[in-house]
Amino acid sequence: MINLAIVGSTGSVGTQTLAVIRDFPDLLFVVGLAAGNNVELLASQAHEFRPKFVSATSGRHIDVPSSTSVVAMDHIVTDSGVDLVVMASTASAGRISTLQALKAGKEVALASKEVLVTAGQLVSQCAVDSGVVIRPVDSEHSAIAQCLVGESRDSVDELIITASGGAFRDYTMDELIRVTPEQALNHPTWQMGKKITVDSATLVNKAFEVIEAHWLFDIPFESIQVVMHRQSVIHSMVRFVDGSVKAQLGKPDMRIPIQYALFGGERTFGDKDYTYDPVEFSPLTFEELDLQKYPCYELVLESGKRGGTFPAVAATVNEVAVNLFLENKLPFLGISRLLAEVLDMHSGVSEPALEEIVEAEAWAERVTLERWKSVFA
Amino acid sequence: MINLAIVGSTGSVGTQTLAVIRDFPDLLFVVGLAAGNNVELLASQAHEFRPKFVSATSGRHIDVPSSTSVVAMDHIVTDSGVDLVVMASTASAGRISTLQALKAGKEVALASKEVLVTAGQLVSQCAVDSGVVIRPVDSEHSAIAQCLVGESRDSVDELIITASGGAFRDYTMDELIRVTPEQALNHPTWQMGKKITVDSATLVNKAFEVIEAHWLFDIPFESIQVVMHRQSVIHSMVRFVDGSVKAQLGKPDMRIPIQYALFGGERTFGDKDYTYDPVEFSPLTFEELDLQKYPCYELVLESGKRGGTFPAVAATVNEVAVNLFLENKLPFLGISRLLAEVLDMHSGVSEPALEEIVEAEAWAERVTLERWKSVFA
Repeated sequence: MINLAIVGSTGSVGTQTLAVIRDFPDLLFVVGLAAGNNVELLASQAHEFRPKFVSATSGRHIDVPSSTSVVAMDHIVTDSGVDLVVMASTASAGRISTLQALKAGKEVALASKEVLVTAGQLVSQCAVDSGVVIRPVDSEHSAIAQCLVGESRDSVDELIITASGGAFRDYTMDELIRVTPEQALNHPTWQMGKKITVDSATLVNKAFEVIEAHWLFDIPFESIQVVMHRQSVIHSMVRFVDGSVKAQLGKPDMRIPIQYALFGGERTFGDKDYTYDPVEFSPLTFEELDLQKYPCYELVLESGKRGGTFPAVAATVNEVAVNLFLENKLPFLGISRLLAEVLDMHSGVSEPALEEIVEAEAWAERVTLERWKSVFA
Repeated sequence: MINLAIVGSTGSVGTQTLAVIRDFPDLLFVVGLAAGNNVELLASQAHEFRPKFVSATSGRHIDVPSSTSVVAMDHIVTDSGVDLVVMASTASAGRISTLQALKAGKEVALASKEVLVTAGQLVSQCAVDSGVVIRPVDSEHSAIAQCLVGESRDSVDELIITASGGAFRDYTMDELIRVTPEQALNHPTWQMGKKITVDSATLVNKAFEVIEAHWLFDIPFESIQVVMHRQSVIHSMVRFVDGSVKAQLGKPDMRIPIQYALFGGERTFGDKDYTYDPVEFSPLTFEELDLQKYPCYELVLESGKRGGTFPAVAATVNEVAVNLFLENKLPFLGISRLLAEVLDMHSGVSEPALEEIVEAEAWAERVTLERWKSVFA
């Protein structure tokens, strides 16, 4: 029996996590659910899973069963009855909750890329100090973790992260100038939330994944390669020093890596729907990324390599810009322009404390909106 | 320092094993070399690697350095100075040597498919009794072993063995009637010996691999799938019960699995030529096997499922028939005809002792030649 707290239970990964939990009612038990503003869905989840605790950022009333208490988020992730915290909230609250959970010695299954992107050094150090190995939930990082099972870290030559290329992989530069939010949300292979689907179209999501892989697996940036793989069947690969390569693959269904993370790498019978048939998913193709089409990718990746507060600034600029794009207030290529300009204005802090990261993010939000107003509004 | 004996040092796997050893002069040391009739190459190998012992089936004089003794094969595989026996001889002597090496507690790296195909139960039991885990050398089995590292055996749902399809994969049945030995020896992706290349064209080699995988990994036949993969880049895959699949891949170069076997799964820096680039090897395709074109495959696989002396009989009929084909004395499709007829005439012994296997093989050789004479000669 594994006792779970799910932070971000109403989002895409959160609801899919609950779908996996439904398959294993005798093994997985929900102790706490935390969400942002979607209190209707949270209430309905509470009635189905009967957790001990729920928490919501929204101040609104939540209709919960009488056995469920509404508490503060930190209570949920540190409660003594919780074994594993699934961190699936993209809000900045996710970062604090992750640090609190790690400090309390909880196992952490991490779906929120922002946590390691913005505070990789802090969070990694905290995990090491607590003796916790963070379990990746993302399909790419789960693939790498699976390829590394039983292998020594010294034997890794390169991580090869696959990228579908997102919704605009076959657009010309001319077409990119005119794309709409509706087009950006049309991801070719995965069903995901809105922001992450745009991040997939800009490949910012992939740059985040490279930064996350750097921290999760303690691999230098120059040993992480990204290759375009349209079919999203091979979720990622590891090349070892002897020339051998291992890949993890399967149907593009998030429930597989979620289940792997929940059970801590122990493999449990999954839904037969998951069964991968190689002939069904043939051919598998690989292409170099046309980086010209993905200016955001290099900007964000570069921020990760520079480290310190740079990646947190990049993530904030991107978030603000993507929201403006989704509201039809910024053209698609404006996202990269704002990223380039604000990163250029930032004087970074190396090895920042959490407060310095928060400060840099607040600065980035303010400056991004200023730049947006003066150029696009 | 690993002290090696190589049985079959002058064959394809033997010479590639020595090529790997050349790359690691401080780690890999040749104690003994054994060969069949190619005493010139054996002598030249002895002068280069200065082993303590050599052995040859041929009674001819071998020109060896003064520090090298010419001894009997059993001496080489059981010598106290040997840590690991590389079994790369296709001769039936390989089977006895394997059993002797296992009984002497030596590690065994097994390249000779015939050993487990003809005496799978005996050899597996002997390995278990000696506490030795046989190391596969074949690229497919090495791939499976690599995918299984750190995974529990219970978590395996299916082995997916890839098959290039051999030289005749795109021939029609009409064309197959007329194929010549020269055409059969034109393997699309791997450089190998003559007999194994014909076995690859008939897919007998793949049926052998399924039988070998059954014994090496203790997996039932119904959980082993073969899929056609023209590029020979994905060497094989394992599907786990949770729907996740792992694959091992890389350049089609036998030195990679040989090196992995020699170092017992420890990964050591290999030649940079080995470096796999996904874009270079795109696309990767998978197709159902057209079993109509490969009648030998089903006959041999069926013999493996029946067990007992059947697979040894199948291997013998196949060997006799392939040699007749290579001598232009039997049409290509005659191989499957002889297999079907002789297997049909065989009354098998279940759980046979070594002598019963040898007896069944002698019977099979005699009957195959008789059938050949009456039908084709």
